[in-house]
Amino acid sequence: MRVLGIDPGLTRCGMGVVDGTVGRPLTLVDVNVIRTPSAWAVPERLVYIEKGIEARLDEHQPDAVAIERIFARSDVSTIMGTAQAAGVAMVCAARRGLPIALHTPSEVKAAVSGNGRADKAQVGAMVTRILRLDAMPKPADAADALALAITHIWRGGAQSRIDAALAAARTRA
Amino acid sequence: MRVLGIDPGLTRCGMGVVDGTVGRPLTLVDVNVIRTPSAWAVPERLVYIEKGIEARLDEHQPDAVAIERIFARSDVSTIMGTAQAAGVAMVCAARRGLPIALHTPSEVKAAVSGNGRADKAQVGAMVTRILRLDAMPKPADAADALALAITHIWRGGAQSRIDAALAAARTRA
Repeated sequence: MRVLGIDPGLTRCGMGVVDGTVGRPLTLVDVNVIRTPSAWAVPERLVYIEKGIEARLDEHQPDAVAIERIFARSDVSTIMGTAQAAGVAMVCAARRGLPIALHTPSEVKAAVSGNGRADKAQVGAMVTRILRLDAMPKPADAADALALAITHIWRGGAQSRIDAALAAARTRA
Repeated sequence: MRVLGIDPGLTRCGMGVVDGTVGRPLTLVDVNVIRTPSAWAVPERLVYIEKGIEARLDEHQPDAVAIERIFARSDVSTIMGTAQAAGVAMVCAARRGLPIALHTPSEVKAAVSGNGRADKAQVGAMVTRILRLDAMPKPADAADALALAITHIWRGGAQSRIDAALAAARTRA
């Protein structure tokens, strides 16, 4: 399966695409970061992010999208923009009927490093090793997006399959 | 000018359209509330809200959109959904190049009632009087959306004109 991982943010929105299945080596397909200047109005920044996500979805046609789950207790100065960027990412995926899974930072850290409290450097190092890359993806948002995609593949996408089945059932009802 | 006011929320998203200019009686064009069941997944709820907002924009072709400004200190249990619904509303308006203004609850209360700490009932009563309605719009989200549109017209849309000019300048640059 091919998964697009998204680490949402207004200033930097990380996007990583990974191919693979549980128990086999995973492959990096694409990684990049959408950046928007803080001088822009928030609506414009969100539209720019939407266009960037749509372009990646068009190009890579993922089977599922994994987005970082945001908590209301996160950094207050950036939480609103992060939540809004995550909302835009969800809408982009849901409009296409793609399964969407939200993974918490702890789940992602635990999945790739075995330690739910791993730091950025540890996550980056594990992503580099898992995808057999020559160098650590930078910035951290890029590595985090790849870690989200890896987490999703390793968890077997069970939750997203359940959600998709429920969504399909509702559409038929 | 015609303004679409949006009181964002996942469970209830209020939308009110008001016609008028400063110093003249204002007219109610439309008011309604988009509701999504809490049993739905968040991405589906956001897509449903997006469709509802798009339908109102198509139908009423407003000159500007006024959205309630959300603060990170708001009710933690609903803040993420509210922020995401607000983000979707911003994207819908910005994609069409419409001027967008964010007004805080205090600004709206002060504009329609003269009291920045007015309660829901006072805001509803003033909206009813300003728009010469027979009954108070319900639920409160509907009245709040109309109050946002009224606030925007009475403030002369100055901020949104500045934002639109800046956005246009950037597009040309």
